[in-house]
Amino acid sequence: MEFKVEEGIEVLRQTPLAIKAILRPLSNTWIERNEGPNTWSPFDVVGHLIHGEETDWIPRARIIINDGETRPFVPFDRVAMFEKSKGKSLPDLLDTFSSLRKSNVQELERMDLTPAMLEKRGRHPELGTVTLAQLLAAWVVHDLGHIAQIVRVMARQYRDEVGPWSAYLSILGK
Amino acid sequence: MEFKVEEGIEVLRQTPLAIKAILRPLSNTWIERNEGPNTWSPFDVVGHLIHGEETDWIPRARIIINDGETRPFVPFDRVAMFEKSKGKSLPDLLDTFSSLRKSNVQELERMDLTPAMLEKRGRHPELGTVTLAQLLAAWVVHDLGHIAQIVRVMARQYRDEVGPWSAYLSILGK
Repeated sequence: MEFKVEEGIEVLRQTPLAIKAILRPLSNTWIERNEGPNTWSPFDVVGHLIHGEETDWIPRARIIINDGETRPFVPFDRVAMFEKSKGKSLPDLLDTFSSLRKSNVQELERMDLTPAMLEKRGRHPELGTVTLAQLLAAWVVHDLGHIAQIVRVMARQYRDEVGPWSAYLSILGK
Repeated sequence: MEFKVEEGIEVLRQTPLAIKAILRPLSNTWIERNEGPNTWSPFDVVGHLIHGEETDWIPRARIIINDGETRPFVPFDRVAMFEKSKGKSLPDLLDTFSSLRKSNVQELERMDLTPAMLEKRGRHPELGTVTLAQLLAAWVVHDLGHIAQIVRVMARQYRDEVGPWSAYLSILGK
Protein backbone atom coordinates (compact mmCIF):
# COMPACT_ATOMS: atom_id res chain seq x y z
CA MET A 1 0.00 0.00 0.00
CA GLU A 2 1.53 3.26 -1.12
CA PHE A 3 2.24 5.82 1.60
CA LYS A 4 -0.14 8.78 1.49
CA VAL A 5 0.20 11.59 4.00
CA GLU A 6 -3.56 11.79 4.68
CA GLU A 7 -3.84 8.04 5.36
CA GLY A 8 -0.79 8.09 7.58
CA ILE A 9 -2.24 10.98 9.55
CA GLU A 10 -5.47 9.01 10.12
CA VAL A 11 -3.45 6.52 12.14
CA LEU A 12 -1.13 9.01 13.84
CA ARG A 13 -4.10 11.00 15.08
CA GLN A 14 -5.77 7.95 16.62
CA THR A 15 -2.85 6.45 18.50
CA PRO A 16 -3.23 8.47 21.72
CA LEU A 17 -6.97 7.71 21.79
CA ALA A 18 -6.34 4.02 21.16
CA ILE A 19 -3.75 3.76 23.92
CA LYS A 20 -5.98 5.71 26.31
CA ALA A 21 -8.88 3.38 25.52
CA ILE A 22 -6.72 0.35 26.26
CA LEU A 23 -4.89 1.56 29.38
CA ARG A 24 -6.72 4.37 31.14
CA PRO A 25 -9.17 2.35 33.26
CA LEU A 26 -6.79 -0.47 34.14
CA SER A 27 -5.37 -1.36 37.55
CA ASN A 28 -1.70 -0.65 38.08
CA THR A 29 -0.94 -4.33 37.91
CA TRP A 30 -1.69 -4.25 34.15
CA ILE A 31 0.22 -1.02 33.60
CA GLU A 32 3.41 -1.73 35.50
CA ARG A 33 4.31 -5.32 34.65
CA ASN A 34 6.76 -6.07 31.87
CA GLU A 35 7.97 -9.25 30.16
CA GLY A 36 11.03 -9.76 32.36
CA PRO A 37 14.48 -8.14 32.65
CA ASN A 38 15.24 -5.45 30.05
CA THR A 39 11.67 -5.34 28.74
CA TRP A 40 9.13 -2.57 28.89
CA SER A 41 5.82 -2.20 30.71
CA PRO A 42 2.87 -0.42 29.07
CA PHE A 43 3.81 2.59 31.24
CA ASP A 44 7.35 2.54 29.79
CA VAL A 45 5.99 2.35 26.23
CA VAL A 46 3.93 5.52 26.67
CA GLY A 47 7.02 7.33 27.96
CA HIS A 48 8.97 6.13 24.91
CA LEU A 49 6.26 7.44 22.57
CA ILE A 50 6.43 10.84 24.29
CA HIS A 51 10.20 11.00 23.78
CA GLY A 52 9.65 10.17 20.10
CA GLU A 53 7.24 13.11 19.76
CA GLU A 54 9.78 15.43 21.34
CA THR A 55 12.98 14.34 19.65
CA ASP A 56 12.40 11.95 16.77
CA TRP A 57 9.75 12.14 14.08
CA ILE A 58 8.88 15.78 13.48
CA PRO A 59 12.35 17.08 14.39
CA ARG A 60 13.77 14.69 11.77
CA ALA A 61 11.18 15.73 9.19
CA ARG A 62 12.28 19.34 9.76
CA ILE A 63 15.93 18.37 9.24
CA ILE A 64 15.10 16.64 5.93
CA ILE A 65 13.11 19.62 4.71
CA ASN A 66 15.60 22.27 5.84
CA ASP A 67 18.97 20.55 5.46
CA GLY A 68 18.50 17.36 3.45
CA GLU A 69 21.35 14.88 3.67
CA THR A 70 23.90 17.46 4.74
CA ARG A 71 22.86 17.25 8.41
CA PRO A 72 22.50 13.73 9.89
CA PHE A 73 19.66 13.15 12.37
CA VAL A 74 20.44 13.33 16.08
CA PRO A 75 20.50 9.69 17.33
CA PHE A 76 17.27 8.76 19.12
CA ASP A 77 17.54 7.58 22.73
CA ARG A 78 15.17 4.57 22.87
CA VAL A 79 15.34 4.27 26.65
CA ALA A 80 15.28 7.92 27.75
CA MET A 81 11.85 7.33 29.29
CA PHE A 82 13.20 5.28 32.18
CA GLU A 83 14.54 8.52 33.67
CA LYS A 84 12.03 10.97 32.19
CA SER A 85 8.89 9.14 33.31
CA LYS A 86 10.01 8.81 36.94
CA GLY A 87 7.45 10.11 39.41
CA LYS A 88 4.80 10.62 36.73
CA SER A 89 1.43 8.92 36.64
CA LEU A 90 -0.01 7.11 33.64
CA PRO A 91 -2.78 9.73 33.17
CA ASP A 92 -0.05 12.42 33.12
CA LEU A 93 1.85 10.56 30.44
CA LEU A 94 -1.26 9.87 28.36
CA ASP A 95 -2.22 13.54 28.43
CA THR A 96 1.30 14.63 27.52
CA PHE A 97 1.42 12.17 24.63
CA SER A 98 -2.00 13.31 23.33
CA SER A 99 -1.06 16.93 23.44
CA LEU A 100 2.37 16.49 21.79
CA ARG A 101 0.91 14.26 19.10
CA LYS A 102 -1.83 16.77 18.37
CA SER A 103 0.62 19.60 17.76
CA ASN A 104 2.96 17.36 15.77
CA VAL A 105 0.14 16.26 13.47
CA GLN A 106 -0.83 19.90 13.05
CA GLU A 107 2.75 20.73 12.11
CA LEU A 108 2.79 17.83 9.64
CA GLU A 109 -0.42 19.15 8.07
CA ARG A 110 1.04 22.66 7.83
CA MET A 111 4.04 21.25 5.94
CA ASP A 112 1.58 20.62 3.11
CA LEU A 113 3.83 17.95 1.65
CA THR A 114 3.88 17.44 -2.11
CA PRO A 115 5.03 14.17 -3.77
CA ALA A 116 8.32 15.88 -4.60
CA MET A 117 8.88 16.90 -0.96
CA LEU A 118 8.15 13.33 0.17
CA GLU A 119 11.08 12.17 -1.96
CA LYS A 120 13.49 14.54 -0.21
CA ARG A 121 16.35 12.72 1.48
CA GLY A 122 17.92 12.79 4.89
CA ARG A 123 20.71 10.92 6.59
CA HIS A 124 19.97 8.52 9.42
CA PRO A 125 23.00 8.03 11.71
CA GLU A 126 22.81 4.23 11.35
CA LEU A 127 20.53 3.48 8.41
CA GLY A 128 22.05 5.94 5.93
CA THR A 129 19.98 7.65 3.27
CA VAL A 130 16.22 7.71 3.89
CA THR A 131 13.36 9.68 2.35
CA LEU A 132 10.80 11.85 4.09
CA ALA A 133 8.06 9.40 2.97
CA GLN A 134 9.97 6.54 4.61
CA LEU A 135 10.35 8.54 7.83
CA LEU A 136 6.62 9.23 7.98
CA ALA A 137 5.65 5.64 7.11
CA ALA A 138 8.05 4.45 9.84
CA TRP A 139 6.34 6.80 12.32
CA VAL A 140 2.99 5.14 11.56
CA VAL A 141 4.41 1.61 11.80
CA HIS A 142 6.28 2.53 15.01
CA ASP A 143 2.95 3.58 16.59
CA LEU A 144 1.25 0.35 15.55
CA GLY A 145 4.20 -1.72 16.76
CA HIS A 146 4.00 -0.18 20.20
CA ILE A 147 0.24 -0.72 20.44
CA ALA A 148 0.94 -4.37 19.60
CA GLN A 149 3.65 -4.42 22.26
CA ILE A 150 1.36 -2.98 24.94
CA VAL A 151 -1.31 -5.62 24.39
CA ARG A 152 1.28 -8.41 24.09
CA VAL A 153 2.87 -7.45 27.44
CA MET A 154 -0.59 -7.47 29.00
CA ALA A 155 -1.56 -10.80 27.42
CA ARG A 156 1.60 -12.50 28.66
CA GLN A 157 0.73 -11.75 32.27
CA TYR A 158 -1.88 -14.50 31.83
CA ARG A 159 0.46 -17.00 30.13
CA ASP A 160 0.01 -19.54 32.93
CA GLU A 161 -3.62 -18.67 33.58
CA VAL A 162 -5.08 -19.83 30.27
CA GLY A 163 -4.05 -23.47 30.77
CA PRO A 164 -4.37 -25.57 27.59
CA TRP A 165 -5.67 -22.57 25.59
CA SER A 166 -2.07 -21.38 25.24
CA ALA A 167 -1.89 -23.71 22.20
CA TYR A 168 -4.37 -21.45 20.38
CA LEU A 169 -3.19 -18.05 21.59
CA SER A 170 -0.11 -17.21 19.54
CA ILE A 171 0.31 -13.83 21.26
CA LEU A 172 1.61 -15.74 24.29
CA GLY A 173 4.67 -16.87 22.32
CA LYS A 174 6.43 -20.19 22.85
CA MET B 1 -0.15 -12.73 37.36
CA GLU B 2 -3.01 -14.58 38.95
CA PHE B 3 -6.36 -14.36 37.16
CA LYS B 4 -8.87 -12.18 39.02
CA VAL B 5 -12.34 -11.67 37.62
CA GLU B 6 -12.35 -7.91 38.28
CA GLU B 7 -9.01 -7.38 36.53
CA GLY B 8 -10.08 -9.52 33.59
CA ILE B 9 -13.28 -7.50 33.28
CA GLU B 10 -11.26 -4.27 33.15
CA VAL B 11 -9.76 -5.47 29.87
CA LEU B 12 -12.90 -7.11 28.46
CA ARG B 13 -14.86 -3.90 28.98
CA GLN B 14 -12.31 -1.78 27.11
CA THR B 15 -11.79 -3.90 24.02
CA PRO B 16 -14.68 -2.47 21.95
CA LEU B 17 -13.57 1.08 22.84
CA ALA B 18 -9.97 0.29 21.96
CA ILE B 19 -10.88 -1.22 18.60
CA LYS B 20 -13.24 1.67 17.84
CA ALA B 21 -10.49 4.15 18.69
CA ILE B 22 -8.10 2.38 16.33
CA LEU B 23 -10.43 1.71 13.39
CA ARG B 24 -13.43 4.00 13.35
CA PRO B 25 -11.95 7.03 11.58
CA LEU B 26 -9.83 5.10 9.09
CA SER B 27 -10.23 4.93 5.32
CA ASN B 28 -11.46 1.63 3.91
CA THR B 29 -8.03 0.89 2.60
CA TRP B 30 -6.82 0.35 6.19
CA ILE B 31 -9.90 -1.67 7.14
CA GLU B 32 -10.15 -4.05 4.21
CA ARG B 33 -6.61 -5.13 3.48
CA ASN B 34 -5.26 -8.37 4.91
CA GLU B 35 -1.86 -10.07 4.99
CA GLY B 36 -2.43 -12.21 1.88
CA PRO B 37 -4.40 -15.37 1.04
CA ASN B 38 -6.19 -16.97 4.01
CA THR B 39 -5.49 -14.07 6.35
CA TRP B 40 -7.88 -11.63 7.96
CA SER B 41 -8.44 -7.92 7.53
CA PRO B 42 -9.29 -5.68 10.52
CA PHE B 43 -12.92 -5.87 9.30
CA ASP B 44 -12.79 -9.69 9.45
CA VAL B 45 -11.33 -9.61 12.97
CA VAL B 46 -14.24 -7.54 14.30
CA GLY B 47 -16.69 -10.04 12.79
CA HIS B 48 -14.79 -12.88 14.45
CA LEU B 49 -14.98 -11.12 17.83
CA ILE B 50 -18.75 -10.74 17.39
CA HIS B 51 -19.16 -14.45 16.70
CA GLY B 52 -17.15 -15.16 19.87
CA GLU B 53 -19.54 -13.04 21.92
CA GLU B 54 -22.50 -14.91 20.48
CA THR B 55 -21.28 -18.48 20.61
CA ASP B 56 -18.05 -18.88 22.53
CA TRP B 57 -17.09 -17.29 25.83
CA ILE B 58 -20.23 -16.69 27.87
CA PRO B 59 -22.10 -19.67 26.38
CA ARG B 60 -19.18 -21.88 27.46
CA ALA B 61 -19.06 -20.30 30.92
CA ARG B 62 -22.75 -21.18 31.26
CA ILE B 63 -22.05 -24.78 30.24
CA ILE B 64 -19.29 -25.10 32.85
CA ILE B 65 -21.50 -23.66 35.59
CA ASN B 66 -24.60 -25.65 34.66
CA ASP B 67 -23.23 -28.93 33.35
CA GLY B 68 -19.53 -29.13 34.21
CA GLU B 69 -17.57 -31.73 32.27
CA THR B 70 -20.61 -33.80 31.34
CA ARG B 71 -21.46 -31.57 28.39
CA PRO B 72 -18.60 -30.71 26.01
CA PHE B 73 -18.54 -27.21 24.52
CA VAL B 74 -19.98 -26.70 21.04
CA PRO B 75 -16.96 -26.31 18.69
CA PHE B 76 -16.31 -22.66 17.81
CA ASP B 77 -16.37 -21.69 14.13
CA ARG B 78 -13.33 -19.41 13.76
CA VAL B 79 -14.28 -18.28 10.26
CA ALA B 80 -18.05 -17.88 10.53
CA MET B 81 -17.64 -14.13 10.06
CA PHE B 82 -16.76 -14.43 6.37
CA GLU B 83 -20.43 -15.21 5.73
CA LYS B 84 -22.00 -13.37 8.66
CA SER B 85 -20.29 -10.01 8.04
CA LYS B 86 -21.25 -9.84 4.36
CA GLY B 87 -23.00 -6.62 3.42
CA LYS B 88 -22.35 -5.02 6.82
CA SER B 89 -20.35 -1.85 7.40
CA LEU B 90 -17.53 -1.49 9.91
CA PRO B 91 -19.56 0.94 12.09
CA ASP B 92 -22.37 -1.68 12.16
CA LEU B 93 -19.96 -4.36 13.31
CA LEU B 94 -18.32 -2.11 15.92
CA ASP B 95 -21.70 -1.21 17.38
CA THR B 96 -22.81 -4.84 17.44
CA PHE B 97 -19.59 -5.91 19.14
CA SER B 98 -19.88 -3.12 21.76
CA SER B 99 -23.43 -4.00 22.59
CA LEU B 100 -22.86 -7.77 22.81
CA ARG B 101 -19.74 -7.29 24.91
CA LYS B 102 -21.59 -4.97 27.27
CA SER B 103 -24.32 -7.51 27.96
CA ASN B 104 -21.81 -10.37 28.25
CA VAL B 105 -19.74 -8.47 30.80
CA GLN B 106 -22.94 -7.73 32.71
CA GLU B 107 -23.80 -11.42 32.68
CA LEU B 108 -20.29 -12.27 33.89
CA GLU B 109 -20.69 -9.78 36.75
CA ARG B 110 -24.06 -11.27 37.67
CA MET B 111 -22.46 -14.72 37.91
CA ASP B 112 -20.70 -13.34 41.01
CA LEU B 113 -17.97 -15.93 40.68
CA THR B 114 -16.30 -17.27 43.82
CA PRO B 115 -12.82 -18.86 43.84
CA ALA B 116 -14.51 -22.27 44.08
CA MET B 117 -16.67 -21.57 41.03
CA LEU B 118 -13.60 -20.46 39.06
CA GLU B 119 -12.14 -23.93 39.62
CA LYS B 120 -15.20 -25.63 38.09
CA ARG B 121 -14.32 -27.73 35.09
CA GLY B 122 -15.63 -28.06 31.59
CA ARG B 123 -14.72 -30.13 28.56
CA HIS B 124 -13.28 -28.45 25.49
CA PRO B 125 -13.86 -30.53 22.34
CA GLU B 126 -10.16 -30.45 21.45
CA LEU B 127 -8.26 -29.27 24.52
CA GLY B 128 -9.96 -31.56 27.04
CA THR B 129 -10.49 -30.52 30.66
CA VAL B 130 -10.36 -26.79 31.31
CA THR B 131 -11.42 -24.61 34.24
CA LEU B 132 -13.74 -21.63 34.24
CA ALA B 133 -10.79 -19.41 35.30
CA GLN B 134 -8.82 -20.64 32.27
CA LEU B 135 -11.76 -19.92 29.96
CA LEU B 136 -12.06 -16.36 31.26
CA ALA B 137 -8.29 -15.72 31.13
CA ALA B 138 -8.31 -17.06 27.55
CA TRP B 139 -11.13 -14.64 26.69
CA VAL B 140 -8.96 -11.71 27.86
CA VAL B 141 -5.87 -12.95 26.02
CA HIS B 142 -7.95 -13.64 22.88
CA ASP B 143 -9.10 -9.98 22.88
CA LEU B 144 -5.54 -8.71 23.27
CA GLY B 145 -4.28 -11.07 20.56
CA HIS B 146 -6.82 -9.74 18.10
CA ILE B 147 -5.98 -6.10 18.91
CA ALA B 148 -2.35 -7.02 18.20
CA GLN B 149 -3.45 -8.69 14.96
CA ILE B 150 -5.40 -5.63 13.80
CA VAL B 151 -2.45 -3.29 14.26
CA ARG B 152 -0.02 -5.81 12.76
CA VAL B 153 -2.15 -6.19 9.62
CA MET B 154 -2.26 -2.40 9.31
CA ALA B 155 1.48 -2.00 9.91
CA ARG B 156 2.35 -4.55 7.23
CA GLN B 157 0.60 -2.53 4.56
CA TYR B 158 3.60 -0.19 4.87
CA ARG B 159 6.24 -2.94 4.79
CA ASP B 160 7.80 -1.57 1.59
CA GLU B 161 7.15 2.07 2.47
CA VAL B 162 9.44 2.33 5.48
CA GLY B 163 12.61 1.56 3.48
CA PRO B 164 15.64 0.81 5.68
CA TRP B 165 13.58 1.35 8.88
CA SER B 166 12.19 -2.16 8.46
CA ALA B 167 15.34 -3.35 10.29
CA TYR B 168 14.06 -1.63 13.47
CA LEU B 169 10.34 -2.36 13.15
CA SER B 170 9.87 -5.95 14.28
CA ILE B 171 6.09 -5.79 13.77
CA LEU B 172 6.79 -5.98 10.02
CA GLY B 173 8.16 -9.53 10.40
CA LYS B 174 10.91 -10.97 8.22
